[in-house]
Amino acid sequence: MSALLRLLRTGAPAAACLRLGTSAGTGPRRAMALYHTEERGQPCSQNYRLFFKDVTGHYISPFHDIPLKVNSKEENGIPTKKARNDEYENLFNMIVEIPRWTNAKMEIATEEPLNPIKQYVKDGKLRYVANIFPYKGYIWNYGTLPQTWEDPREKDKSTNCFGDNDPIDVCEIGSKILSCGEVIHVKILGILALIDEGETDWKLIAINVNDPEASKFHDIDDVEKFKPGYLEATLNWFRLYKVPDGKPENQFAFNGEFKTSTNLQISDSPFRCTQEEARSLVELVLSSPNKESNEEEQVWHFLGK
Amino acid sequence: MSALLRLLRTGAPAAACLRLGTSAGTGPRRAMALYHTEERGQPCSQNYRLFFKDVTGHYISPFHDIPLKVNSKEENGIPTKKARNDEYENLFNMIVEIPRWTNAKMEIATEEPLNPIKQYVKDGKLRYVANIFPYKGYIWNYGTLPQTWEDPREKDKSTNCFGDNDPIDVCEIGSKILSCGEVIHVKILGILALIDEGETDWKLIAINVNDPEASKFHDIDDVEKFKPGYLEATLNWFRLYKVPDGKPENQFAFNGEFKTSTNLQISDSPFRCTQEEARSLVELVLSSPNKESNEEEQVWHFLGK
Repeated sequence: MSALLRLLRTGAPAAACLRLGTSAGTGPRRAMALYHTEERGQPCSQNYRLFFKDVTGHYISPFHDIPLKVNSKEENGIPTKKARNDEYENLFNMIVEIPRWTNAKMEIATEEPLNPIKQYVKDGKLRYVANIFPYKGYIWNYGTLPQTWEDPREKDKSTNCFGDNDPIDVCEIGSKILSCGEVIHVKILGILALIDEGETDWKLIAINVNDPEASKFHDIDDVEKFKPGYLEATLNWFRLYKVPDGKPENQFAFNGEFKTSTNLQISDSPFRCTQEEARSLVELVLSSPNKESNEEEQVWHFLGK
Repeated sequence: MSALLRLLRTGAPAAACLRLGTSAGTGPRRAMALYHTEERGQPCSQNYRLFFKDVTGHYISPFHDIPLKVNSKEENGIPTKKARNDEYENLFNMIVEIPRWTNAKMEIATEEPLNPIKQYVKDGKLRYVANIFPYKGYIWNYGTLPQTWEDPREKDKSTNCFGDNDPIDVCEIGSKILSCGEVIHVKILGILALIDEGETDWKLIAINVNDPEASKFHDIDDVEKFKPGYLEATLNWFRLYKVPDGKPENQFAFNGEFKTSTNLQISDSPFRCTQEEARSLVELVLSSPNKESNEEEQVWHFLGK
């Protein structure tokens, strides 16, 4: 982990992209209290959007305006019971997109103004992840680190693949089911290099610092120690999750080991608009009753042992 | 299977109790259309009850008034596309209590008038099954056969244990998530003899005859063939599901084999009341807003490999 942490601390150049925090903010207590969400449109429809606001009620982009790092000075006033001071270096904001055990592929819309969360649409259809027996939906709270990006134009030297053009993904392994749009502080425990249809797709393994068990978890070995089978399930899940869509099994770099990695790079492409423009944008997303049905959410795929 | 089927056909005496159908009914099309449910009280509260009505709108007991066997003559008019005529012998009504992937222990209240479905309460608390990693909630649609009962006063000769004083349980392995209170036709594929806290608790493995894949399933070997790992998961699940409550692992008779069994007995204890009395009973169950919170539904128990 040390090399990864060093890079996350310094933002040293490499293949994947990490844009350092621009809005350290005015220092209230917890990430949860710093951000609010506003739903527009009907859940499970193509026009559903979850917008983010800061503590003053201004619309923000979760992708651009939430800092990557949790600033220990800002947080010093809090009873962060689980995080020791020397662990602040390892604390990041995570934006939860997909609650554990659900299937809808919710994601930050990186190409839309204000970058709300929406459900991924492909070929005109809302997308759901398949249930790979014996699992149900996503097996962690799944989300991203703000202000990160895996560059599709640059070849990752360690995996020999290009980035997937998305923020860096996080698998949060805590005991609570989190909500879509929650912004939490996570401690990063390990990293897995998935090669998904030929693209490098780093998956961070992390735990919510406010999880009742967070203090027990310091590195990837603690995951195997306290949640036996979870890492193996994580590998199986990522290997197989696209097979029901007719795609081949995914591969892993480093023989599927959960390990330190080193692929982060400074970039800068702020996406700014006035609050008036933001309000107009949000209001364009109307409610509509056309909830789409989804049978895939029910099916369990038995792919052998 | 043949001995089990012979017994289910004839109701020959043995340790577990099977009361033969009393209300063959007037022969409409499908089980689904024959029965309706009526919710009373607030879901996830102790006063929630799901009552059953027949096609004429009369309250019935799902436990006593729904026949065990699907009568092929009654059903001959239907396009039961999945069931061949020679398979009618093996068709039973199943009352679904717990939909796949849910946790609330919903069950037929065998000691209450009209035997509605309610959530199991122990020590004053609503009960939920634990999530045993890697599973989420119940891993099948779970329910019971009407008019059956495992006698707690008689020792089962094959398992050397007494019955658990409940109807016979069914694990429905079809691809659809069914609803609490659905009455479906199932084809029985196998049986497992669980010894749960010293009591015999037979678990039938069955498939909804209207499942898209039902025609492929004829016996227990087809479960392993078409849903590899599901039987092993079923054993693991039943072995471990009470461990988070501080109880020991459950055991199985016959070394955990899924097999034919032979433990059914005629009994007779009709529970009748007038429709007026029934209506009064149902109306006693008032709505109330006291939905109880449930954290257990969120927790995943990692019990090692």
